[in-house]
Amino acid sequence: MAEQVVLHRGLKGIYLDATRICHIDGEKGILLYRGYSIHDLAQNATFEEVCYLLLYGDLPNRQQLAEFDAALRASRTLPSAVLDIIRSVKDAHPLDVLRTAVSALSAFDPDVKEMTTEANLRKGTRLIAQFPTIVATHERMRNGLEPVPPREDLNHAANFLWMLKGEEPDADSAKAMDLDFILHAEHSSNASAFAVRVAASTMADLHAAIVAGIAALKGPLHGGAAEAVIEMAEEIGEPERAEAWVKEQLAQGKRIMGFGHRVYKTEDPRARHLRELAKRLGEKFGDPKTFQIMTAIERAMEPLRAKGIYVNVDFYAGCIYHYLGIPADLYIPIFAIGRIPGWVAHAIEQYADNVLIRPLLHYVGPMERQFVPIDRRG
Amino acid sequence: MAEQVVLHRGLKGIYLDATRICHIDGEKGILLYRGYSIHDLAQNATFEEVCYLLLYGDLPNRQQLAEFDAALRASRTLPSAVLDIIRSVKDAHPLDVLRTAVSALSAFDPDVKEMTTEANLRKGTRLIAQFPTIVATHERMRNGLEPVPPREDLNHAANFLWMLKGEEPDADSAKAMDLDFILHAEHSSNASAFAVRVAASTMADLHAAIVAGIAALKGPLHGGAAEAVIEMAEEIGEPERAEAWVKEQLAQGKRIMGFGHRVYKTEDPRARHLRELAKRLGEKFGDPKTFQIMTAIERAMEPLRAKGIYVNVDFYAGCIYHYLGIPADLYIPIFAIGRIPGWVAHAIEQYADNVLIRPLLHYVGPMERQFVPIDRRG
Repeated sequence: MAEQVVLHRGLKGIYLDATRICHIDGEKGILLYRGYSIHDLAQNATFEEVCYLLLYGDLPNRQQLAEFDAALRASRTLPSAVLDIIRSVKDAHPLDVLRTAVSALSAFDPDVKEMTTEANLRKGTRLIAQFPTIVATHERMRNGLEPVPPREDLNHAANFLWMLKGEEPDADSAKAMDLDFILHAEHSSNASAFAVRVAASTMADLHAAIVAGIAALKGPLHGGAAEAVIEMAEEIGEPERAEAWVKEQLAQGKRIMGFGHRVYKTEDPRARHLRELAKRLGEKFGDPKTFQIMTAIERAMEPLRAKGIYVNVDFYAGCIYHYLGIPADLYIPIFAIGRIPGWVAHAIEQYADNVLIRPLLHYVGPMERQFVPIDRRG
Repeated sequence: MAEQVVLHRGLKGIYLDATRICHIDGEKGILLYRGYSIHDLAQNATFEEVCYLLLYGDLPNRQQLAEFDAALRASRTLPSAVLDIIRSVKDAHPLDVLRTAVSALSAFDPDVKEMTTEANLRKGTRLIAQFPTIVATHERMRNGLEPVPPREDLNHAANFLWMLKGEEPDADSAKAMDLDFILHAEHSSNASAFAVRVAASTMADLHAAIVAGIAALKGPLHGGAAEAVIEMAEEIGEPERAEAWVKEQLAQGKRIMGFGHRVYKTEDPRARHLRELAKRLGEKFGDPKTFQIMTAIERAMEPLRAKGIYVNVDFYAGCIYHYLGIPADLYIPIFAIGRIPGWVAHAIEQYADNVLIRPLLHYVGPMERQFVPIDRRG
């Protein structure tokens, strides 16, 4: 080939498009949702406000929030056919169950074919409301328990814990869940949001685009890290063993889960809030050891900061889910419950000024092979 | 920003990676699967041979083909829980039903967590076998008919038509279906195969990756064109009306469906085979008019060849499905039945030498907005 072919493996450093949703400065550790610092949102906003911000572009006033929140609360119940589907696939991984249930929900959404922004905001709002019900319903069913119907008097995070456990969460646990959702709500064009955009770029409907996002979240290189983090903490067992364990792993050339990020070359700005929260929950529940193991691992990893490897969001998220008594294989679907507003925002932005996303692959295989009839093949 | 940001909207012209699966030369109208010309494969191979070629890299010998074909025939039956799921979402679009059923199948696949190439080839073979059963079962159920169980004595294409209609297809119809599947089996990194690769790049399992592909196929800019083509032919109604209709549409600045391609700037090499086949079926079934309308549209579009706008694969595919008596909303799932071997090949290639796919988005929204408490928001 005369043409000079440059491969952009992983699309590293390639700008896909302009966006008004999220800004990340990986050198400075800055994360903005619609222009607002993640630190301000973590300290001052609720998940419902953050959802509104991501979907509509601005923080809501009292009336806008009340209307949006009422729409969420009214949309939590699933069609009975989807409950049956969850039951019939209940032995699958919870993220696969979420993917199947969301795909099935498209059969029951009155707006499924409508592609106006208004219809997509309605569908997106319903999906935000439905995700926690699917995850909690599945958790109950696979444990042989009856699903707990949603409660209209609880906010999004508290209602999720209510549906999961059948008991009303204490205020700290509910706030921890709310904050975890806020910190996971959006993160620019990571693999799952990018999968949403690729599907949306064919003008596939919103349910299809969101299913593509859930599918991409499945992988251990994306959504699966928090689960691996808590397994690591359990393997280490005691805070004083952490340093030797980390050194041993690094000596063997292994990665330590929950550290390093394709974008951040300094501390992931989300980690700070989750660290504080994990500490508080550990004290509250009289179980400081898991948190101590986590901080000991983080201390042992300090030498790698020189290479830009810092703690990321998954590291303390796993610790918090552990304190909330959530089984490890629910960590990825909980990530999805947090991320769905971001995915919806990306789909709507892609639809609004769309170009079909289709890169090239450079063929390096054999050319013009001669077809040989089957009886003459070796 | 001091940095110069270049946006690659749609990733046009960006090479993602090297591949050994498929080569397209859009200027010369060349399409190779694993190095073999699409013309040789269309004239000499069966869909089963093409599947083997895409999955394993070489055409099979007699024994390899017999084993692969036996595995396909043995995998056509769906778990009863998946039949129930299809029934419960039967009012959805057939591609949404396929997506939901494939997502649910992950709950019943014995290899779902296995990520070896061997396990992925087994899973991929099963999915190739299961796609037609899902589509045919859904078509029967939504028409209030009992599903037709697969027959082990029929090849892939003939068995699909058997399950769809409950009658054994004539040889020409079976061959038309087989050829249509061959021509759709693979087409490099179009949006659906790319969605498969994005999901696979997180090391999500094969079912997840394939679900992402189905999700992306939904859009009218990708899988939906054949359906739009036959609607256009029906609107035109008579061959002699085609020229005036096309001119009128072009004068209004509208696109004519089934023409033009992001990659091909000459005739899509797949169109030739489908045109011949459509002609033959029209004569056989005593209904030459639809074919005559199609050729009249193609003639009316000849002036646009100077701009590189030629007929594409969707144009005559719609005509053939019409002759086979297939409802228009099954065209996209039939595209998926053809494309699944290509998707599997892309997932396996991505896993084998993986880099997480994550482009950048360039933030152009407001920066560092000041957080205002809700009661002070306008």
